[in-house]
Amino acid sequence: MSPEISSSVPDVGAADRVHVFDTTLRDGEQSPGISLNTQEKLEIAQQLARLGVDVIEAGFPITSPGDFEAVESIARAVEGPVICALARTHKADIDAAWNAIRDSERPRIHTFISTSDIHITHQLQTTREDVKGQARAAVAMARSLCDEVEFSPMDATRAELEFTAEVCAIALAEGATVINIPDTVGYTTPDEYARYFARLLELVPGLGEIELSVHCHDDLGLAVANAYSGLLAGARQVECAVNGIGERAGNCSLEEIVMLLRTRRDEHGLDTALDTRELARTSRMITRFTGYAVQPNKAIVGRNAFAHEAGIHQDGVLKERSTYEIMDARDVGLESNSIVLGKHSGRHALRDALEQLGFQIDGNALNQAFKRFKAIADKKKQVTALDLEAIVSDQVRDGGAGYELAWFDVEASSRREPRAEVAVRMPDGGQALGVSGGDGPVNAIFGAIREAAGVESELRQYTVSAVTEGEDALGEVTVMLRAHGRLASGQGVATDILEASARAYVRALSNALEGAAVREAEGTIGDSASQPVTPGP
Amino acid sequence: MSPEISSSVPDVGAADRVHVFDTTLRDGEQSPGISLNTQEKLEIAQQLARLGVDVIEAGFPITSPGDFEAVESIARAVEGPVICALARTHKADIDAAWNAIRDSERPRIHTFISTSDIHITHQLQTTREDVKGQARAAVAMARSLCDEVEFSPMDATRAELEFTAEVCAIALAEGATVINIPDTVGYTTPDEYARYFARLLELVPGLGEIELSVHCHDDLGLAVANAYSGLLAGARQVECAVNGIGERAGNCSLEEIVMLLRTRRDEHGLDTALDTRELARTSRMITRFTGYAVQPNKAIVGRNAFAHEAGIHQDGVLKERSTYEIMDARDVGLESNSIVLGKHSGRHALRDALEQLGFQIDGNALNQAFKRFKAIADKKKQVTALDLEAIVSDQVRDGGAGYELAWFDVEASSRREPRAEVAVRMPDGGQALGVSGGDGPVNAIFGAIREAAGVESELRQYTVSAVTEGEDALGEVTVMLRAHGRLASGQGVATDILEASARAYVRALSNALEGAAVREAEGTIGDSASQPVTPGP
Repeated sequence: MSPEISSSVPDVGAADRVHVFDTTLRDGEQSPGISLNTQEKLEIAQQLARLGVDVIEAGFPITSPGDFEAVESIARAVEGPVICALARTHKADIDAAWNAIRDSERPRIHTFISTSDIHITHQLQTTREDVKGQARAAVAMARSLCDEVEFSPMDATRAELEFTAEVCAIALAEGATVINIPDTVGYTTPDEYARYFARLLELVPGLGEIELSVHCHDDLGLAVANAYSGLLAGARQVECAVNGIGERAGNCSLEEIVMLLRTRRDEHGLDTALDTRELARTSRMITRFTGYAVQPNKAIVGRNAFAHEAGIHQDGVLKERSTYEIMDARDVGLESNSIVLGKHSGRHALRDALEQLGFQIDGNALNQAFKRFKAIADKKKQVTALDLEAIVSDQVRDGGAGYELAWFDVEASSRREPRAEVAVRMPDGGQALGVSGGDGPVNAIFGAIREAAGVESELRQYTVSAVTEGEDALGEVTVMLRAHGRLASGQGVATDILEASARAYVRALSNALEGAAVREAEGTIGDSASQPVTPGP
Repeated sequence: MSPEISSSVPDVGAADRVHVFDTTLRDGEQSPGISLNTQEKLEIAQQLARLGVDVIEAGFPITSPGDFEAVESIARAVEGPVICALARTHKADIDAAWNAIRDSERPRIHTFISTSDIHITHQLQTTREDVKGQARAAVAMARSLCDEVEFSPMDATRAELEFTAEVCAIALAEGATVINIPDTVGYTTPDEYARYFARLLELVPGLGEIELSVHCHDDLGLAVANAYSGLLAGARQVECAVNGIGERAGNCSLEEIVMLLRTRRDEHGLDTALDTRELARTSRMITRFTGYAVQPNKAIVGRNAFAHEAGIHQDGVLKERSTYEIMDARDVGLESNSIVLGKHSGRHALRDALEQLGFQIDGNALNQAFKRFKAIADKKKQVTALDLEAIVSDQVRDGGAGYELAWFDVEASSRREPRAEVAVRMPDGGQALGVSGGDGPVNAIFGAIREAAGVESELRQYTVSAVTEGEDALGEVTVMLRAHGRLASGQGVATDILEASARAYVRALSNALEGAAVREAEGTIGDSASQPVTPGP
């Protein structure tokens, strides 16, 4: 690494330091069709720690035993960032949140309740007085358990400002250490949000002494701009998600707000402490685990963000990089890796390469990864850092339990119906065969898997993306299906698109099976909550 | 259509009317790997006219005979919007632009030159005095040809403001009717951009009397917010592109700025005259023709923009729509179509359905579309509006010239190498066979097509997306390849992913063949330009 690049972790005064609160695992994970298991969430949290985020919102423990377990694992294993759990203002929620994070070195409880009349009337079906009482009791209880307590008046930007100020004053009096002002439905504008903060600071004495936070949704395309405006108005924590995922149009994109602060420090003097060279890898990991692709023209991490069409544009860039580039691609972790392995590379070389990529793999996991690597290196001339990432990630997702693809044969033609034959290893260790036609080879394979596994399942979504460019690129398939009464997703990686599809489908079936087990246990905790679970700020 | 929805075309005073300048066909088309032919550009322009944009920037005629021809066709055929062509400050550029648009009812020449020292020194390699002279001559010449002339000081936001003001004053004095202030590299912030406009209005007398315009790139995720800020500061034209495509991270997204203005009219009083119910369809057309997918969490037109995860979020929405939705999905053209055809639907029903979707198809084109429809309806229980759009679009792209897929057979297996056999109809009318193995069935098919066509070609990108959800969804494949010395892309639609892949590859080869013809002719015009072509504002 050159000294020029290592200077990318900056040095700003404490007053100008913006704290990054990542909610990829909470608000991001609530996006339709994303279903991460505990192992995947742990991998993501470790990567967020490498990236240097200040706070990880790890989940919403009351919502399911699976969510509880994931937050608990992260709290126990991940060092560095504050580990935060979300809770409504109910006692059961706060208990669950605390029990999940209590083993963290730096735990935080985040509790919320809506202050907008539209939410109070239609969703909570209660009164403003009751909201004040709930906020007071929740913050007091959370504070009795945990030193760090964050409070959010949900839907604040559509709420009466004076009432929101009253509720914030109560939270402050009860000892909240962070107050977050969510634009829950992505409705506000930069000017309006700045005015909101200014007026709130006038109305709530002492608010300026604790940490203020922004949480913005992108329904009108303004999430990053609104978050930025809130920071200029005095907030010093920004809530955001990798690739901007989250409910509906998603959250403020982590990589965009971080690079905006870094690139335009001349304008505002603020900065985060993130190691931005980890941004590209973090983005790829989230894409892979969620199946949510990033569009080519997405800022910072899109395929074209640093690309230029042929002709003079290239010419300009060659003449002087700054002609059309305001950021250096190396500073976001692109172009940083030159690892290339081939079919003659040994176990040792693979292990070294994986270590360079931040994966600590040994023993049986290394053996498994090496087997996959060899199979792929046989078909692909060069195995790059991006390929290795995909292979190892695929390995991580394979919990071992559930169904497994043994082999398949497919015939397809434009002149007759396709035919697929598939063998699936069952959870009990046995092997089952399935044969099916369909309206295409993928459809036929899925039919054959369903027949082999003997499970009713319905395909909901099917996406394919290429890991690297070129003729022998690895294909990554994400499948979302409904089986065992729930939605589940699965990924598969292979040079063969049909193989990747079959792997993804089988993996999704396995995840649905795990999920089904979780769902049966869920009833108990679900009942203890007095109402169905809200989406959160 | 309900009266509630038809109220979506609003009524604002002239002073508060924002004009939408769409640059999808110019800045958008410059994205890497997009190659639209004249027929496709014309389809897009017609759709933009239906959407109600005020100005269509149809292309950059000097850059190639193909671009010239597309702009000319649009200028002759598309009624309603102003048709604009881009030109550097060179005489040859302005001549080409004028010749391309002169048959339009409302032509506009858009000329530009950089005012930033970084561009003047490194790219133009000239002086500030020369820039002033070029701007003066270009605007004067354009104005002698055309009543509407737009001038852009490129990279203005990184340029010295006082010098930019001097150049704008010159353009104004020579009769420019619109002055556009581009944030060419996506560097500015909302506050900074607003200050820039305010100061420019002070320094250039008379600037407030003509139309001011914003043009923002999204490198830091602020394109929409910056454009909005410029409008609040007095601009009344917004340059933008559908799905936010364009150089690098792209342009201000048309659908986002339009829905921001519509939804928050309470805050600013501004609005456009667009029929927003055409937004969703326009977005799908651009995705399909460019192969640039929109991420699920993209604002307004992403798959999830109006979706909510199960649980109470749904509950909230059911109780009262406004709990979590600030826009009505019907107002952007989602959920608006209930067309469903099946395999027993006749030619007449198809024609009616297509008409409802805005496609006027008759004669041989209708026969072809009906044949494709029947083939797909045989495999798919229900053919929806989205399916029909995909089928007809696929039809439109098929120029008829070039290569065509006759048939294919593929065998794939996890236990041995795949094998593909393909027959391709050649441009000369003959049929050629190819056989190939590969590292997967797609790879094998592409190998077989290459062998059959006898053309050297290299795959650069391969993307797959589903048109609709469910087991029997239509798959849409986009292939980008290099052949005949140029990059070209092609799409294919089928229920069978291998068939869609084969169609896309053959289509891309045909486009490369057409492109090769264009390229040979290009040398002549290219030489008449005194330097290589710039990317534009």
